[in-house]
Amino acid sequence: MRGETVAQLAEGTIVARDVLETARVAGIQAAKRTSELLPLCHPLLLQDIRIAFTVAENHVAIEVEVASVDRTGVEMEALTAGAVAALTIYDMCKSRDPDMSIEGLCVWEKSGGRSGAWRLTENGGVVHFDT
Amino acid sequence: MRGETVAQLAEGTIVARDVLETARVAGIQAAKRTSELLPLCHPLLLQDIRIAFTVAENHVAIEVEVASVDRTGVEMEALTAGAVAALTIYDMCKSRDPDMSIEGLCVWEKSGGRSGAWRLTENGGVVHFDT
Amino acid sequence: MRGETVAQLAEGTIVARDVLETARVAGIQAAKRTSELLPLCHPLLLQDIRIAFTVAENHVAIEVEVASVDRTGVEMEALTAGAVAALTIYDMCKSRDPDMSIEGLCVWEKSGGRSGAWRLTENGGVVHFDT
Amino acid sequence: MRGETVAQLAEGTIVARDVLETARVAGIQAAKRTSELLPLCHPLLLQDIRIAFTVAENHVAIEVEVASVDRTGVEMEALTAGAVAALTIYDMCKSRDPDMSIEGLCVWEKSGGRSGAWRLTENGGVVHFDT
Amino acid sequence: MRGETVAQLAEGTIVARDVLETARVAGIQAAKRTSELLPLCHPLLLQDIRIAFTVAENHVAIEVEVASVDRTGVEMEALTAGAVAALTIYDMCKSRDPDMSIEGLCVWEKSGGRSGAWRLTENGGVVHFDT
Amino acid sequence: MRGETVAQLAEGTIVARDVLETARVAGIQAAKRTSELLPLCHPLLLQDIRIAFTVAENHVAIEVEVASVDRTGVEMEALTAGAVAALTIYDMCKSRDPDMSIEGLCVWEKSGGRSGAWRLTENGGVVHFDT
Repeated sequence: MRGETVAQLAEGTIVARDVLETARVAGIQAAKRTSELLPLCHPLLLQDIRIAFTVAENHVAIEVEVASVDRTGVEMEALTAGAVAALTIYDMCKSRDPDMSIEGLCVWEKSGGRSGAWRLTENGGVVHFDT
Repeated sequence: MRGETVAQLAEGTIVARDVLETARVAGIQAAKRTSELLPLCHPLLLQDIRIAFTVAENHVAIEVEVASVDRTGVEMEALTAGAVAALTIYDMCKSRDPDMSIEGLCVWEKSGGRSGAWRLTENGGVVHFDT
Repeated sequence: MRGETVAQLAEGTIVARDVLETARVAGIQAAKRTSELLPLCHPLLLQDIRIAFTVAENHVAIEVEVASVDRTGVEMEALTAGAVAALTIYDMCKSRDPDMSIEGLCVWEKSGGRSGAWRLTENGGVVHFDT
Repeated sequence: MRGETVAQLAEGTIVARDVLETARVAGIQAAKRTSELLPLCHPLLLQDIRIAFTVAENHVAIEVEVASVDRTGVEMEALTAGAVAALTIYDMCKSRDPDMSIEGLCVWEKSGGRSGAWRLTENGGVVHFDT
Repeated sequence: MRGETVAQLAEGTIVARDVLETARVAGIQAAKRTSELLPLCHPLLLQDIRIAFTVAENHVAIEVEVASVDRTGVEMEALTAGAVAALTIYDMCKSRDPDMSIEGLCVWEKSGGRSGAWRLTENGGVVHFDT
Repeated sequence: MRGETVAQLAEGTIVARDVLETARVAGIQAAKRTSELLPLCHPLLLQDIRIAFTVAENHVAIEVEVASVDRTGVEMEALTAGAVAALTIYDMCKSRDPDMSIEGLCVWEKSGGRSGAWRLTENGGVVHFDT
């Protein structure tokens, strides 16, 4: 994302709040439809979806947190929410900034699943830890 | 993506073709539902969607091409197809490789729109050219 | 709704049963998709949806009853079913009666939820009662 | 809607903007899915959807404007957007105000269709006028 | 389908009209979603969908007619409508007749497409004819 | 299906694997949306969906197996998956073989439901047996 676009978001030349609110709603709705989008993903009853945005110097960071009491992990729901939130921001800013890209869509932390809790390390590996 | 996972895809320990075929179908279906996912995206009648995969040393590259005779650009349909194809690969490989990430989701080239043809340059800028 | 339109529904000039059967099916299907339509609504497994129509002098009354064993209330599912059933009737009668309106879409009675049972009073207040 | 709830919306005790932005996005997305919800409604390519909210003393007024170059009228798309926007507000305010109701969902003005332009009059009739 | 089930449909022991009306609505709605269900099917703007049922001695015959002004054929929309209408009848009669089957889902006649008009012959071949 | 078409599937003149993989994905995705397609079908959380294809002399046989821990039977999910898988094959082969038909869509075996286990007999009846 161009520093200029981010500055316009911060200054309100682009109505930032509308963009981020719309992206949040789109992300939440997409999370609920994950099993329709990903063929081998089971339908789940999600309990809670939170999407937070941080407007940085030349990008917008998106952090998604999903909770479920259901049988399997919800990382695909979180990743889908993040992807669709990012695509919505792209869609609403693309007329002024057509060379944006979406980077680093990944799982940072997971807990409560069968495989135990783990967290992504700086250099891309995974550290398992007790819960 | 771990080199190990990519090797398993190439060697057939993970049935690569199934993963990529499933990802292709998921991407195509998602492209047709772009306007349901992105709030400010108009519904379009897509003419053609092509998704190509290249299995490289430590990643799978996804290239999407979308054509339409409709009124507006189709970059959001292409990006949505790419995102969902990538998420499908993630979903089907995550049990053995939980620290994958999706990187560099962007528009490489666009032609025929109101704003003229353009192509992304190496260093991330956009070059406009005649058609 | 014009008395004339309602009379035609009663006399069968408009095939009333088709209109109401179509509205019933549309309402039931919409109830099952409530969480796709309302961003902050959780997906629920509905147990039972009943939609009853009463053709009165100058309107059609719609009564929806929804039951669930799930964690939260189902008033949004009932209201969504009612809204979509009403919109379907509007859609099928609008060529002869374009000045219809949809009025009084609200929750009459709720039981079994965390907040206890309650019922709407004549003058629009809510009375809580024991169950 | 209780005057109290509306006051809380105005004062920001309920984060009004979030409620209304969410309702706007939900309404826009529902308009694009009208033909999925209403059985006899044709799919249309919508050109433009605008939803405006006015927070009044004891209610929120919702005004929807839809444009299309397509073959048939778009009143069902506008009414569906309005209904779903209203249901979203209901959903997000219901914990503090369970006796809200949705009233007066109707078409105010239509132009450019086969049947000519018309506007709803104060007393509920329809006046046709030239275009 | 058992003769008994069909007789109950005719006699009204099973409320036949409800079953067939529900199947009609389900078929029409499915036709409009064909491109969501079949991966390589283009989205089309359908003009008209008609579904007719004939209650015979030991089966219900379903005839679907779909028209479109769009670029490509609509046989997949017709077949999808027929399949979903048949599945709906199955679903609503299965408690009393679990050994029903759906047979002979095929295209009888097509006109106006690029490949010219044709009609299925008795013995399963296709006869092309002029239009 | 013409023997010729099946031979081309076997010889790879039609890329059979792509057709069958696409049909499998389409069938799986449709099973998850059964309650959206069939009005009186409850939404269920499916546990497992398997679709197997057998390319025979003049037809492709499709076998679907669905498991669920949920409250009710899943035969409608299995039948819907089979119907949509068959329609996808039809769609991808229709340009060379327009007189295909879909035959014998039915339930072969069911176990674990309230009504006990049963299996379809050769001559179309149902045999109940103990579990």
